[in-house]
Amino acid sequence: MSAEVYRTTRPGLLGAANVGETVQVAGWIQTRRDHGGIVFVDLRDSTGILQVVLDPEAASAPAAVLSGLRREYVISVTGAVAARGPEQVNPDLATGEIELVATELRVLSPSDPLPFQLDGRVDVDEALRLEYRYLDLRRPAMAANLQARSNAIRAMRRVLDGRGFLEVETPTLVASTPEGARDVLVPSRLRPGRFYALPQSPQLFKQLLMISGVDRYYQIARCYRDEDFRADRQIEFTQLDLEGAFWGQDEVLEVLEEVAVAVTRDLRGLELARPFPRLTWQEAMDRFGTDKPDIRFGMEIQDLSALFAATGFKAFAEVLAGGGTVRGINAGAQGLSRAGLDGLVERALALGAKGLVWMVVEEDGSLRSPVAKFLSDDEQAALGAALRVSPGDLLLVVADRFQVVAKVLGALRLDMGQPEGHDEIAFVMVTDFPMFEVGEDGSLTSMHHPFTSPEDVTEMAESPGTAASLAYDVVLNGAELGSGSVRIHNPEVQAKVFEVLGITEEDASRRFGWFMDALRYGTPPHAGFAYGIDRMVSILQDQPNIREVIPFPKTQTGADPLTGSPSRVEKEQLGELGIEIAPAVLAIWAEEESPT
Amino acid sequence: MSAEVYRTTRPGLLGAANVGETVQVAGWIQTRRDHGGIVFVDLRDSTGILQVVLDPEAASAPAAVLSGLRREYVISVTGAVAARGPEQVNPDLATGEIELVATELRVLSPSDPLPFQLDGRVDVDEALRLEYRYLDLRRPAMAANLQARSNAIRAMRRVLDGRGFLEVETPTLVASTPEGARDVLVPSRLRPGRFYALPQSPQLFKQLLMISGVDRYYQIARCYRDEDFRADRQIEFTQLDLEGAFWGQDEVLEVLEEVAVAVTRDLRGLELARPFPRLTWQEAMDRFGTDKPDIRFGMEIQDLSALFAATGFKAFAEVLAGGGTVRGINAGAQGLSRAGLDGLVERALALGAKGLVWMVVEEDGSLRSPVAKFLSDDEQAALGAALRVSPGDLLLVVADRFQVVAKVLGALRLDMGQPEGHDEIAFVMVTDFPMFEVGEDGSLTSMHHPFTSPEDVTEMAESPGTAASLAYDVVLNGAELGSGSVRIHNPEVQAKVFEVLGITEEDASRRFGWFMDALRYGTPPHAGFAYGIDRMVSILQDQPNIREVIPFPKTQTGADPLTGSPSRVEKEQLGELGIEIAPAVLAIWAEEESPT
Repeated sequence: MSAEVYRTTRPGLLGAANVGETVQVAGWIQTRRDHGGIVFVDLRDSTGILQVVLDPEAASAPAAVLSGLRREYVISVTGAVAARGPEQVNPDLATGEIELVATELRVLSPSDPLPFQLDGRVDVDEALRLEYRYLDLRRPAMAANLQARSNAIRAMRRVLDGRGFLEVETPTLVASTPEGARDVLVPSRLRPGRFYALPQSPQLFKQLLMISGVDRYYQIARCYRDEDFRADRQIEFTQLDLEGAFWGQDEVLEVLEEVAVAVTRDLRGLELARPFPRLTWQEAMDRFGTDKPDIRFGMEIQDLSALFAATGFKAFAEVLAGGGTVRGINAGAQGLSRAGLDGLVERALALGAKGLVWMVVEEDGSLRSPVAKFLSDDEQAALGAALRVSPGDLLLVVADRFQVVAKVLGALRLDMGQPEGHDEIAFVMVTDFPMFEVGEDGSLTSMHHPFTSPEDVTEMAESPGTAASLAYDVVLNGAELGSGSVRIHNPEVQAKVFEVLGITEEDASRRFGWFMDALRYGTPPHAGFAYGIDRMVSILQDQPNIREVIPFPKTQTGADPLTGSPSRVEKEQLGELGIEIAPAVLAIWAEEESPT
Repeated sequence: MSAEVYRTTRPGLLGAANVGETVQVAGWIQTRRDHGGIVFVDLRDSTGILQVVLDPEAASAPAAVLSGLRREYVISVTGAVAARGPEQVNPDLATGEIELVATELRVLSPSDPLPFQLDGRVDVDEALRLEYRYLDLRRPAMAANLQARSNAIRAMRRVLDGRGFLEVETPTLVASTPEGARDVLVPSRLRPGRFYALPQSPQLFKQLLMISGVDRYYQIARCYRDEDFRADRQIEFTQLDLEGAFWGQDEVLEVLEEVAVAVTRDLRGLELARPFPRLTWQEAMDRFGTDKPDIRFGMEIQDLSALFAATGFKAFAEVLAGGGTVRGINAGAQGLSRAGLDGLVERALALGAKGLVWMVVEEDGSLRSPVAKFLSDDEQAALGAALRVSPGDLLLVVADRFQVVAKVLGALRLDMGQPEGHDEIAFVMVTDFPMFEVGEDGSLTSMHHPFTSPEDVTEMAESPGTAASLAYDVVLNGAELGSGSVRIHNPEVQAKVFEVLGITEEDASRRFGWFMDALRYGTPPHAGFAYGIDRMVSILQDQPNIREVIPFPKTQTGADPLTGSPSRVEKEQLGELGIEIAPAVLAIWAEEESPT
């Protein structure tokens, strides 16, 4: 059987230089217009769009075929490239100076009428877009996102290959990992009743690679986290995972910068200045109220505690006496009505504050505020100086525990100040994270993960609540792109961290014994990081969420409207796996299936 | 906290040009020798090995520390690069002309005594190697395998990126796929009682990408198959998956060749001649008795049926009368004893033959064989001519149905003729596979998968048992490296294939309805392939099995002796998933746990 030829060139590759050539092209019909029997088709493929002129007299296709052509039909056309008349030139089209005068037409595939238009002029419901993702991806913006993602990953590889990193594939059917309860479990058929887990990250395997003598490792790694799909998360996601032996924080951050610069250059045509700004975790919390600061704008938080040290305003005085803090931001001229200001107070209460003090700077420099009367003239003047006020400015002040103040002012700062769009690209490195998070009940959990090195082992043991770690994040425009740390390479330090975390020796041995053993055979100091690729590409592509840059994402409930997954499976398959559907779930099924 | 510096250069990068320089290096102690208090250490990292001289007088480390150094300790050493005396030069070592005279030593990590030696002089049990994979990977051969795998994938990317392929990540939590019963299932927590499947391949998603307008796609894809771990398989494996729109078989095979040439060049330094040999499936079966022929040696199967058309030898005559075939190979001078020959007969019987005729060519050209007396002189002469015999040659003849003859002679050919080692690299493309496999009961299953295009739809419908498809394999040294095909892009043809396969319309709609729908919106003709990367790298690296080129493989029972996966999990986790351990499995657990 002789193979068919569908094309000799591509629509978007043709131009004035090709006039007079006979070519064959194939693609999708973007639009068709009928002018007295002659059909004009805009033919599209991934290279671009070409106007094709189909005259039933010349195109060896009967008029009936021509008039039957519809949008998104796939056709192959042979013809001569012709210059358009000056009046017909379309300056909006790269191929606007020419057209293809068809001598032969073949319809390769027809198309049913589309469930939605592809021209982006009408907003389409996301569920419908996902159900017909293969059509959604035909839209230029989505095709550009696919291309950008591929380009981003290529830029990452270019940097790391150039630095001699080894790409290593770590397993994805692993033992249940320690990074949280949300492992995705996979029943084993060969060992019924036992389970693999899908990795939340290749953390321990990449540390094993360091122990194996791999000097620099990276992987574009699929990771899994079975959490509630609040916010902008997916059950599976992709990370650029990397690690290096005999490495410290500075070496990691340097590579991370280089990767970020390369990706930003390839996706935005922008040359970022280096080094990136660096903040310690404490600085970030103090100045921006968050460990993922958006530094595209100022409106920084100011500590006003000293200023109100001797205040007569009871709400402030009590907080300060109790070890709390008074801080504020100058939100600039917001021109809010009284209702708008009340809205801010409500927002602050919802964020956990006991109250929010707002003040508006009048033309004469005096403060308009329900609490102005409680503040002395000196305090008002000092406040104005600390927050560098101008007439019209809105000042927001919160008095509470540090954590509450930071949370509330950090959120209000974003509400009031976040710039529209994403024209600016502002990376920032946040370092010196606390080792542990302290729960309401005083319990400790790892801020990053339990394999993070403390800055000082003695400090960690003696005051774990405030001890710093060698962990760092990269933040872009207020979003965390990823975390990393210098790891623990000493098994005694590792055991100490488990102890501080309240993990018993027996428990540690059961869960991580194999890893603790590995540390005993000559472990080099090592450090690493993982960049979230979905997030990075979505921000650089100005997309509202990560689903726009994932070829086939799932909905917030983890479902795929296209394929219907997850779905029910045959009872026999479950039998082989040594598992059964729980009676409670069967009851729900029965209800679903009973006729109403 | 100021960061520690562990090294300023690497052991294997130093040479005579660096003599006199003060450097810092870090790595593992490969060997240590004590000469009257002065300790000589071979220091290893991934760049190579460097001799370090540690004199307790100079090395600012007390003699006790020096004498405590052991193999695989991780150390950092500062010192001066010195030339060795002419007598001390070690020509076996890249850095053999120099040594590092230490002035400072730091032990970064000690090492427990190893469970096995790393020098490869003793065969180590594979289970032990896997349990301590991080040590196993320190062995030079394994480090080379890791590097080769990374190089192979880089070569693939280079070819495909250069040709403008788009790298796209398809999901790994998908709907249960149609390619066999052996889906790996993943219970969904957000929708208890429902399951995702891990993909056996990205087949349908890459076809969707073609429908989406992606012109050329590739992905280094993790795939999963829950089959019995007979032979050399893993539950998770990696493929180079690719697909192209408006593509036919020739275009795919050309790219596959280019990929194979690039990988072979990078891993073996060998420039393969192109085009690769191509055989149709029928030719491969006729000449080699298998669809994955090892063409590094001849010993091809000859059809002797015509020669014995009028034979008086009953065993042959009956088979021929029944529509069977008589075929044989010339196995050359094997010098087998009578016992050896009997062994061959037993092997043939085990393979399903009813018998095996062996003949040895005597010095005078006559045939020594239990059946020689049944063959006429003319038949013996014609046989000698057909099999081009020389004195001493062993001839093996089987009479049976074609399938049996091919299987038996194909296997005996490999037994008798397979070359030692893998010095030669012999790729071959096998094309025109049958559309269907016909079971003993006459039932049809897809030879490749049900999305493979038939060569001719009418032929397929009328004589499915013999109809050819547009499917092809790439074979290397007798191993299948991967399969591909021109796909069906017409939904009516797709429906017809399901019908021939005996899949009801309702069943097809339930299982593949979403995909059949997608075909209706303008599907370009397309074709593709998937290379098995594990297999390809293992053959090019001369490895006995794919586990040697997988960083962290599982055993034949799907277990990981290093991490203990798969493992039992907490009952609460299962509850959230809406599943329970089946009582039969619980009973086994109880037995396992009861004290004996």
